[in-house]
Amino acid sequence: MLKRFLITPGPTPVPPEVLLAGAEPIVHHRAPRFVEIFNECIEGLKYVYQTSNDVLVFAASGTGAMEAAVVNVVNPGDKVIVASVGNFGERWVKLTKKWGAEVVALDFEWGTKADPAAIAQALADNPDAKAVYVQFSETSTGVVNDIEAIGKIVAKTPAIFVVDAISGLGATDLPTDAWQVDVCVAGSQKALMIPPGLACVAVSDKAWKVVEACGNPRFYFDWTSHRDKAKDGQTPFTPAVSLFVMLNKAIEMIREETLPTVFERHRVLSRGCKEGVKALGLELFGPDDPAANSVTAVKVPAGVDGGKIGKLARDRYGVWLAGGQGRLKGQIFRFGHCGYFGASDIVVGLSVVEMVLAELGYDVKWGASVGAAEQVFLKSEVAL
Amino acid sequence: MLKRFLITPGPTPVPPEVLLAGAEPIVHHRAPRFVEIFNECIEGLKYVYQTSNDVLVFAASGTGAMEAAVVNVVNPGDKVIVASVGNFGERWVKLTKKWGAEVVALDFEWGTKADPAAIAQALADNPDAKAVYVQFSETSTGVVNDIEAIGKIVAKTPAIFVVDAISGLGATDLPTDAWQVDVCVAGSQKALMIPPGLACVAVSDKAWKVVEACGNPRFYFDWTSHRDKAKDGQTPFTPAVSLFVMLNKAIEMIREETLPTVFERHRVLSRGCKEGVKALGLELFGPDDPAANSVTAVKVPAGVDGGKIGKLARDRYGVWLAGGQGRLKGQIFRFGHCGYFGASDIVVGLSVVEMVLAELGYDVKWGASVGAAEQVFLKSEVAL
Repeated sequence: MLKRFLITPGPTPVPPEVLLAGAEPIVHHRAPRFVEIFNECIEGLKYVYQTSNDVLVFAASGTGAMEAAVVNVVNPGDKVIVASVGNFGERWVKLTKKWGAEVVALDFEWGTKADPAAIAQALADNPDAKAVYVQFSETSTGVVNDIEAIGKIVAKTPAIFVVDAISGLGATDLPTDAWQVDVCVAGSQKALMIPPGLACVAVSDKAWKVVEACGNPRFYFDWTSHRDKAKDGQTPFTPAVSLFVMLNKAIEMIREETLPTVFERHRVLSRGCKEGVKALGLELFGPDDPAANSVTAVKVPAGVDGGKIGKLARDRYGVWLAGGQGRLKGQIFRFGHCGYFGASDIVVGLSVVEMVLAELGYDVKWGASVGAAEQVFLKSEVAL
Repeated sequence: MLKRFLITPGPTPVPPEVLLAGAEPIVHHRAPRFVEIFNECIEGLKYVYQTSNDVLVFAASGTGAMEAAVVNVVNPGDKVIVASVGNFGERWVKLTKKWGAEVVALDFEWGTKADPAAIAQALADNPDAKAVYVQFSETSTGVVNDIEAIGKIVAKTPAIFVVDAISGLGATDLPTDAWQVDVCVAGSQKALMIPPGLACVAVSDKAWKVVEACGNPRFYFDWTSHRDKAKDGQTPFTPAVSLFVMLNKAIEMIREETLPTVFERHRVLSRGCKEGVKALGLELFGPDDPAANSVTAVKVPAGVDGGKIGKLARDRYGVWLAGGQGRLKGQIFRFGHCGYFGASDIVVGLSVVEMVLAELGYDVKWGASVGAAEQVFLKSEVAL
């Protein structure tokens, strides 16, 4: 018996009541009850997105929706600007290049934010740019970009603003409409608190004009057919019905907690985690950003074998942390706290990091990280 | 309280033990336990496919895998032959045209089988054809094509043989390798007995050569990256982990029953359903094919409003039957018996059809269909 904890940025833990909802006998996708569930999910997603734009849902993982946000937008030869701050920024570059875009790649150092002024400059230099692609929360580094500032800049141009909000939506405030995000991509396995397998996009009127003029072949990820079918509470192809049932339950929980409280809970958990890490003398990777609520990335301290942290935590204590991705492999480790997380998870995660780092030779001040987190949690205005 | 029955060709009922397996707390996709589950699923799928070819799994519905079987195969301008016998055959035509293929469309009357001789002739007339696309079980009509015969013909040519086996695999014998199917598409929500959301393909060496030479842009559905990652028990993008857990459980059940018994159970259930329907004086749509084990399609009798059958069955008795699709709307109704079905389901389905048809003015010989099915089931050599 090894009690398991997922303290990863995705997939994230799913509430037991949501898991059980998924065990309900299959609802036929043409059933009136499915139409109700579908419509409630779309309304609920609009609440989480803070949007009145169309929201489309696909049976796919987040990357499927990211590719859809290229296929429906970029004709071969079109120019796009990609502002990359990590591993998933590089995915935008790969995807847009794959589909024949001429890519103006703004590569910011991993662990830093995309500079809105640099994006403004790139747009001024490339007035024919069709779209600007960025991440909201860059899962690989924990950095959260300034979407509001970038949105203001892009809105003044003909380009559309495409944001990968997979690990951020529902954890950190992202008012899609107010911040002028034209295409906002999300995935089910993060703050939406259900298993991986659904991905969604919110599409603005400005984006629809681009989509309708885009000549790329597409069928499964064709947004127009999804929009048309959604009018009848349907999807063009068999939907992942049990994931919709789960999404509906998860959104009910989010609505009950209310979005402002959800964001505040994430903020406090992230703060507790970051203060805990610092109390151990460890260094955060990237800025100590009060808005970076989904992921806490930590530099592996000198003298410790970073490759061993995750394995020890997992095999000895049943706790899953995330390692570094791409060029950060072995250099950082990451806590995820995006979705179904409470103070208990942070306490467990920090405690395990203390034990693991001690075993790997780091001079641990016992209980220091947990104590620091407790002091943050004690002052929380929301339950966690 | 209205007890619900799904007697539809997809999504199909999921066994309770599989539903509960899906309610297990999320397994991280990099966990050694997930690698085990993934590898077991792939081995299990190879058993069901009766193949030693590579089997790739996507987070998508069946149509996603169908599009993948075009995107990875067909360059714009390539010639392909599509043998269509129904609604899903027309989907192959749409998909291949969408991706720029020059389509030689062989349209067989709905309710009939594709004629292997016509396919042989089309291949002789079009020696440059790159692929032949057909359905195994055409879900919209219940017809099962003669894959063995077509496979023999295609194997003699440079073309590859692409089969949509979504509603047939695991219900009716389809030895992928022996019948020389190069690309075999399946979906999770049929005889694999799990909810919709996973789709898979088996890819032969002959097909891999075509795939590797295919220049289409693709990322999410790129087969090469799936093959490469599968070597480590992984997928290139976050897999739908809970559906994999369910698939593993469902495959365990299929292995326990053994494939020959599974096929025989489907054969007897289909036979009972068909004899039941005929005992009511109703006419089957299409040939009374002993190999058509997934779907029983029935003509709406004269004087009965076909549009009302499904609604009455559902609202009054909680039973879901399927109607006609596309040009068959209102003209037929369909029983699905593909996957987690037993004699009980057929009895319930037939009984409800008796009550519903009587209410719609048809002269029903009470109990006749159920009695006819019982006599088939009584002689069954396998438990059902």
